[in-house]
Amino acid sequence: MQPEPNDARWLAAAARLASRGRPLSRPNPAVGCILVKEGRVVARGWTREGGRPHAEAAALDHAGEAARGATAYVTLEPCAHRSLRGPACADRLIEAGVPRVVVGVEDPDPRTAGEGIARLSAAGIAAALLPIPEAEASLAGYLTRATRGRPHVTLKLATSLDGCIAMADGQSQWITCAAARAHVHSRRALTDAILVGGGTWRADKPRVDVRLPGLEDRSPQRILLTRGIPPDGVKVINAPGQIDRLDGVQYLYVEGGAQVAASFLAEDLVDRIELYRAPIVIGAGKHALGDIGLASLGEAHGRWTLAEQRQLGSDTYEAYSRTR
Amino acid sequence: MQPEPNDARWLAAAARLASRGRPLSRPNPAVGCILVKEGRVVARGWTREGGRPHAEAAALDHAGEAARGATAYVTLEPCAHRSLRGPACADRLIEAGVPRVVVGVEDPDPRTAGEGIARLSAAGIAAALLPIPEAEASLAGYLTRATRGRPHVTLKLATSLDGCIAMADGQSQWITCAAARAHVHSRRALTDAILVGGGTWRADKPRVDVRLPGLEDRSPQRILLTRGIPPDGVKVINAPGQIDRLDGVQYLYVEGGAQVAASFLAEDLVDRIELYRAPIVIGAGKHALGDIGLASLGEAHGRWTLAEQRQLGSDTYEAYSRTR
Repeated sequence: MQPEPNDARWLAAAARLASRGRPLSRPNPAVGCILVKEGRVVARGWTREGGRPHAEAAALDHAGEAARGATAYVTLEPCAHRSLRGPACADRLIEAGVPRVVVGVEDPDPRTAGEGIARLSAAGIAAALLPIPEAEASLAGYLTRATRGRPHVTLKLATSLDGCIAMADGQSQWITCAAARAHVHSRRALTDAILVGGGTWRADKPRVDVRLPGLEDRSPQRILLTRGIPPDGVKVINAPGQIDRLDGVQYLYVEGGAQVAASFLAEDLVDRIELYRAPIVIGAGKHALGDIGLASLGEAHGRWTLAEQRQLGSDTYEAYSRTR
Repeated sequence: MQPEPNDARWLAAAARLASRGRPLSRPNPAVGCILVKEGRVVARGWTREGGRPHAEAAALDHAGEAARGATAYVTLEPCAHRSLRGPACADRLIEAGVPRVVVGVEDPDPRTAGEGIARLSAAGIAAALLPIPEAEASLAGYLTRATRGRPHVTLKLATSLDGCIAMADGQSQWITCAAARAHVHSRRALTDAILVGGGTWRADKPRVDVRLPGLEDRSPQRILLTRGIPPDGVKVINAPGQIDRLDGVQYLYVEGGAQVAASFLAEDLVDRIELYRAPIVIGAGKHALGDIGLASLGEAHGRWTLAEQRQLGSDTYEAYSRTR
């Protein structure tokens, strides 16, 4: 396939669009699709609640005849398998008369796994992978499930400049500002489950829900990490390694406390750290992390890359990705 | 005086220029001066080593006849007092035929203190203060001496993302990257003195010197904070409050360790925090700060404002100013 100048930009736009499907597309991945003809967007689609319609189907439904002659930008390889819930997207793209398909990530699902692109090519469509980081990042939950057999794990930390999550007496309301706390709620709304430790549960009785106007029903399921007796109605795991049992969870958001955070880091089960820092100094307070089993400084390096940095009110938000 | 559209920009340029004089202008403040005629720079000057020539004199010397008709932008009010070392800058500006003088900060020195602007005005020159933050920041050491009777204090911290300055066993080489460490050396070269605590001195035997090509002779004097017996040839103070005795020191750079840093913060003697953070996680390590005597979270807020943020290699550099 001949590359065109704006391919990466359109595909990145499809990746941003995909986030609209997160997390309600579950159990399906949140995919984005943009149809472009002569430099203009003909239609857009993203995976809807419960996984149907797929992003390509949503975009094609919207475009109708206008799809003919357009290039389709899709974050994930179009599915090649017909299911009870509808035809394969590869077939729909062929029928729609799309001459060109640019794909961000090959689908690791063995029912597709290259077969989607192959079927498009066989039908005379110019179809190829264009691996861009934005597309991969937008599918992190799905890809982590497929390659590691567990959810994608985000560790949230909210600290002072000197890395404290509370004063020595436990006082922690509030370290971060209202804008940062609202951002945490918006991040919760994008996850399938929130995990806290038994100590935090007993000490703070955290609601860990989404308190944003219009998004109250987006509160994810709560999971408790504890070896103790579970409270009624809360799912429990006994060790970080058991997150592979959390069926249907693509995105897991770990909220604390320090021992839970450390236990996930110690087992290298954290894919992303989201760090909120308030411009305050606490001094002799509670440290953000317990022991992570680090043997030398050398092995601490090279594991984390700054992926995002921004001001939220008075606070700084940073996201770090695990370098793999 | 009628303001002109670019006054603040030219004055900010003079403030940047002033940094060239820091710290070798001591005991004088590092002042910057730009002469502008018809939108073009006619000459620039900054306070030279040992305090002479003053910025205005340096600019006027360079401009010669071209100064006539130019606006002078000066970060600090031109001096009104003749000294053994030369005439007052106010008189020099009058003689040079400068019709307009824009001043960043009124000189708190009682020998000038408004008298410089008054003398210019009396000579028919349009002279006025234009208080901009850049000018004030460029004179921080001088102004802190004048208003608080002590040096301007910068606290340097170099930590992991979770606020550790070392592993539990003391291992701290290296947390930050080479670019961050070089930046520390460039900051040292801008200060008059570096202070470390007795514990750090004994444990690390820190050189706390400037190891940058061409700047080796810029290593500031070293000061030790200790109640113990001082090593030969090192100036000692016994408590943070004694920094008012450090004659000739406009800028003091406090480098550690955790107890020294905390003791300066506890006494509210820190004007700026310079924080270097490496993208690593340490866990159960040594915390950046000891007890700063904080009674409640509420009183921690509102004291620090993010003044600068930038990437240095893999690390993030941030400067926070004490809100006063």
